[in-house]
Amino acid sequence: MKKRGLFITFEGPDGSGKTTQIHLLKEWLEAKGHHCVLSREPGGTVISEKIREIILDKEHKEMDPRAEALLYAAARAQHVAQVIEPALTEGTMVICDRFTDSSMAYQAYGRGLGEGVEVINRFATDGLGPDVTFLMRLAPSEGKNRISGRENDRMELEKLDFHERVYEGYKALERDYPDRIIGIDASGTIEAIHQVIVKRMEELL
Amino acid sequence: MKKRGLFITFEGPDGSGKTTQIHLLKEWLEAKGHHCVLSREPGGTVISEKIREIILDKEHKEMDPRAEALLYAAARAQHVAQVIEPALTEGTMVICDRFTDSSMAYQAYGRGLGEGVEVINRFATDGLGPDVTFLMRLAPSEGKNRISGRENDRMELEKLDFHERVYEGYKALERDYPDRIIGIDASGTIEAIHQVIVKRMEELL
Repeated sequence: MKKRGLFITFEGPDGSGKTTQIHLLKEWLEAKGHHCVLSREPGGTVISEKIREIILDKEHKEMDPRAEALLYAAARAQHVAQVIEPALTEGTMVICDRFTDSSMAYQAYGRGLGEGVEVINRFATDGLGPDVTFLMRLAPSEGKNRISGRENDRMELEKLDFHERVYEGYKALERDYPDRIIGIDASGTIEAIHQVIVKRMEELL
Repeated sequence: MKKRGLFITFEGPDGSGKTTQIHLLKEWLEAKGHHCVLSREPGGTVISEKIREIILDKEHKEMDPRAEALLYAAARAQHVAQVIEPALTEGTMVICDRFTDSSMAYQAYGRGLGEGVEVINRFATDGLGPDVTFLMRLAPSEGKNRISGRENDRMELEKLDFHERVYEGYKALERDYPDRIIGIDASGTIEAIHQVIVKRMEELL
């Protein structure tokens, strides 16, 4: 029986450098001989990408917060069943850009939907959670600046007070899950951040 | 303050005559001077209809049961927030072709997902439930015959044993909610069924 892979997630606002760090971590893991799968949420499967289009469509101004939270959970359920769980079972490392913590930060805290979001995500994932989560800490005003050069989607277009609540949500999650969530100052250099991540990975491998 | 409208749902397999009865009930209510809104699930709003397309697409053979249940719940949340609740508040009668009972019958019983389906739907509807539900009872084999003349969607293409479990699910719901759910033998004449419905509506109005 193969040793189960590690499920690694990256969290934090858009513009916080998650993508860069994910690719560096993948190279590092592969250099050590590990198979890796990269994925992102919402998305990662044909069905989940179609759900993603509905969620992020700027025309959907009338989107109800509960519908939004359930769409994220639906995309996640498909992603877990079709990609994440089979890969982990095969012994592959799964690195995912956002997971349930994003729903907690953006929907439970940002939208004020509270713990119902946790309940629907427990259903969606059938209890699967990350082994380790790297949370890129970046003040909302700073994140906004970093993504101002490109066209923004429906979530990115939310007002600053929404992103402030998301930021507080991430801080609360970091307090609630100190063993799993590693908070990292996103204003550090790419190499300094990578070293924090590598250090934690060496402990886990 | 306006008197709140009644929330009336129709349940039962495709081919059981729901649509015919919904239109007869609408005419009957309007003749009595009530405003009516007809709707259907999954669907009823722009966003919900887009979710419906994902759910019913025959190409989506890989659809995970939990993702499916969450997509129905997401479509429902949008439908409740944008159409059903505002109409009821305005004093309008809302007649809906399928609601949470369908998720219980098809996903909780048919797919075997159990009570988690109830939990995600409580989140989706924020606790809103029908005032009365007319359940058209039709044996699965009979329902299959009635819809065999047209192109079937992904749910309709499910095997007979799935539809047998759905049938058992509906029977269980009828037992669990005897005050709300009125079971009707769908093999009766259109007029006989309409009279059963009218009789119950007269008690409620």
